[in-house]
Amino acid sequence: IGYRIFTDAGLFETFRIPTKEFMNYFQKLEDGYREKPYHNRIHAGDVLHAVYYLSTQPIPGFTQVNPEDTSDSLHKNGSSSDTDSDSGGPSGHTPTVTPRASFTADDSYGILAGNLPALELMALYVAAAMHDYDHPGRTNAFLVATRASQAILYNDRAVLENHHTAAAWSLLLSCPQYNFLSQLDEAEYKRFRFLVIEFILATDLKRHFDFLVEFNAKVNDSDAQGIDWSAEPDRLLVSQMCIKLADISGPTKYKNLHINWTYRISEEFYEQGDEEARLGLPISPYMDRRSPQLAKLQETFINHLVAPLCNAYGQAGLLPGQWVEEDEADQKSDGDISGNESTNEGGTADEDESGNEVAKLPIKKSRKMVSKLTQHIKDNHEWWLKVLEEEAKEKAEKEKKERDEKKKIDDTEMETIEEEEKEIEEKIELKNVKPKEKKKVRLGPVSTMVESDQLDDSSQNSCQDDDK
Amino acid sequence: IGYRIFTDAGLFETFRIPTKEFMNYFQKLEDGYREKPYHNRIHAGDVLHAVYYLSTQPIPGFTQVNPEDTSDSLHKNGSSSDTDSDSGGPSGHTPTVTPRASFTADDSYGILAGNLPALELMALYVAAAMHDYDHPGRTNAFLVATRASQAILYNDRAVLENHHTAAAWSLLLSCPQYNFLSQLDEAEYKRFRFLVIEFILATDLKRHFDFLVEFNAKVNDSDAQGIDWSAEPDRLLVSQMCIKLADISGPTKYKNLHINWTYRISEEFYEQGDEEARLGLPISPYMDRRSPQLAKLQETFINHLVAPLCNAYGQAGLLPGQWVEEDEADQKSDGDISGNESTNEGGTADEDESGNEVAKLPIKKSRKMVSKLTQHIKDNHEWWLKVLEEEAKEKAEKEKKERDEKKKIDDTEMETIEEEEKEIEEKIELKNVKPKEKKKVRLGPVSTMVESDQLDDSSQNSCQDDDK
Repeated sequence: IGYRIFTDAGLFETFRIPTKEFMNYFQKLEDGYREKPYHNRIHAGDVLHAVYYLSTQPIPGFTQVNPEDTSDSLHKNGSSSDTDSDSGGPSGHTPTVTPRASFTADDSYGILAGNLPALELMALYVAAAMHDYDHPGRTNAFLVATRASQAILYNDRAVLENHHTAAAWSLLLSCPQYNFLSQLDEAEYKRFRFLVIEFILATDLKRHFDFLVEFNAKVNDSDAQGIDWSAEPDRLLVSQMCIKLADISGPTKYKNLHINWTYRISEEFYEQGDEEARLGLPISPYMDRRSPQLAKLQETFINHLVAPLCNAYGQAGLLPGQWVEEDEADQKSDGDISGNESTNEGGTADEDESGNEVAKLPIKKSRKMVSKLTQHIKDNHEWWLKVLEEEAKEKAEKEKKERDEKKKIDDTEMETIEEEEKEIEEKIELKNVKPKEKKKVRLGPVSTMVESDQLDDSSQNSCQDDDK
Repeated sequence: IGYRIFTDAGLFETFRIPTKEFMNYFQKLEDGYREKPYHNRIHAGDVLHAVYYLSTQPIPGFTQVNPEDTSDSLHKNGSSSDTDSDSGGPSGHTPTVTPRASFTADDSYGILAGNLPALELMALYVAAAMHDYDHPGRTNAFLVATRASQAILYNDRAVLENHHTAAAWSLLLSCPQYNFLSQLDEAEYKRFRFLVIEFILATDLKRHFDFLVEFNAKVNDSDAQGIDWSAEPDRLLVSQMCIKLADISGPTKYKNLHINWTYRISEEFYEQGDEEARLGLPISPYMDRRSPQLAKLQETFINHLVAPLCNAYGQAGLLPGQWVEEDEADQKSDGDISGNESTNEGGTADEDESGNEVAKLPIKKSRKMVSKLTQHIKDNHEWWLKVLEEEAKEKAEKEKKERDEKKKIDDTEMETIEEEEKEIEEKIELKNVKPKEKKKVRLGPVSTMVESDQLDDSSQNSCQDDDK
């Protein structure tokens, strides 16, 4: 997948990447992912695919600037060539499009890769491939709490993210036959390394809200200045948001795939919970396999992390998607989603073909952006809410049933007690007392004590007997 | 020194520190400092001494709050006992003083340790002792540039500071006989570790201005809220400033001591410069032993780093010092400094006795704070400026001399040329031309061409000859 993406992006030619070293390294990198339920080589491939998707798929209304205009002295343009500008102002509807040979977008669409220098794009892809290298299947909090050697090494700060980055780079430099960056000059290497580190460390969820606040302040808030594509810090922040979204993009996928990943992360959590139990530590939330809370975990995860991030990213006009005419929008959107769900079912996570046919739609003023990602999030969130609702209903029913049964048994017990007392009284009255036997019955398990029918009968009988 | 400070601060009793483990660890820690010109065990002891000085010496006008009032649930009061409050408002001149048994300050003076929970104070001292553990005598920039394994490990971020912290903690946990923290409960241990990490990482000078800006915004700027001693983040920031100041406190010491440390850091720099030269790298500023720039290094260091930090700290009312009456202030200050310089000369860096006698001065309204630290900075800065001036003067003189000599030689040359031309003209006139021989002379090295006396003579002679 790395090779395919590098080829598509023209990165091999742009940076004179030696194919052999590249393949050696990516193979070794993949091998370095452990066989964990979630944080394995498939997750790495998934996130690499997601940043590729986000950076190369058409974004409605996205304005591509001429990459040559950026102030980045390191900028290399890949195989970009002539400029093909339409008339029009700075409005997103009639943008100036600068197609690369490998990356083109139809009019009124643009792609993120068009606004990123090739070096930054390559850093984004390499960071995605590296980003969870040698993940132990435990959380930062666990490593800190157990005083793991890695937590000591990294002073309890972004322990895993620091380790992934350092270990992946160490591998790269460990042997000349892995070093696919040998042809980069000193300045390129330095900046590339800086970017990869920044991108991987951005996946530390502890800093999630800092990134969100910073991004919204720069792009979305009422007094925000917007993205200046010629400014390195702005492009850095956009790319950090991109890899963050890719890293937690499970809920942006169609339901079955999302549920699959949910099972995987849960299993990894349960394994940690098992270890916590073995170590005598309190089991972390959502990590106790004896009380699974999948739906609550995912509902919270989507509601507090994924949706705000995806919304911020979408509000900034960075989400791939398509224009649909306003009138048809709802209908189209609905149809599209149901279509997707059926066509994608049983297939791979490939969502790359979106938009290509719709891009040819005539552009009208009354139109609306539609993104599969947000729609999937919405669907998945609703689905988990429904599951939660059902769970709550089931729980309520179960509790009701238990309450009823308990009530029945309590009633029964009360009746039995009353009956006993009566019997005792009667027997005292009859001067033929055998209270010990009766008491023995009361001390036995409630459920096996008597059958309700018998009890009713016996109580009746006893009454009848009393009357007798 | 660690033992003495812990004893004075009552920390052994407060946290049930086992003396044997404490001594074992501190001995091992000291052994782990390398024999470098600057970053050696003496520097560690120096910084430990400096934080002790800053935290326990009387600060004029410093208001000690009752430590029990702080919201810190972890707070342990050491051997503090009864509260001894004077009447008076929130003014710094008539503060509410809460003396500890081990830490007391006279009225209108307070000490920093009085406002810090014992756990934080202990963390500050331990952090100071640990803060440059296993320093390789090279800078972060050097480790990054040479792709040293530690730079890879720490992703080029605060490489040394991360290493000092992690290595010192790793040592502590490596063996039960070093673990003097065994009696701390889980919450105390967790917070202690957090603080030590925060304190050591604060010594990364890359973050110097961030700290300064944050501190000034919180304490010194016109809209600043001031230090809230009951707020953990405020106390954290103050302690970070304290260890930062201690770490670069060379220029706050009397001149001879400061100059000694200056030679040491320069030697360490030169060793790095030598290695840079060996590796074919450009030699970093101030690190080329062939062109020493001690005075410029120190002048810049004081002007841009130490003085702004010390000023901010002092402006916040945190610098130990003494009240002197306004009228006598200048005189007192001057006398004090010269006195210090003579009494301290040849001794150790001990500046602990300051203020104790002056603290008994009657308090008047027209008074002024005087701190040895700021005065030393001022003196040292002026001294380096003087050295720079002298260097500049020497350089100018040297250049002037060189210029003069050159000019003389140029004049001589001009005269020679003029003479030659004349001679040629004459000789042409005389119809007896030998221009080649004369030209040969002009092409030779200027300085060895002719002696000025001879020249003058010859020129005069030539003129005379001409006249003749």
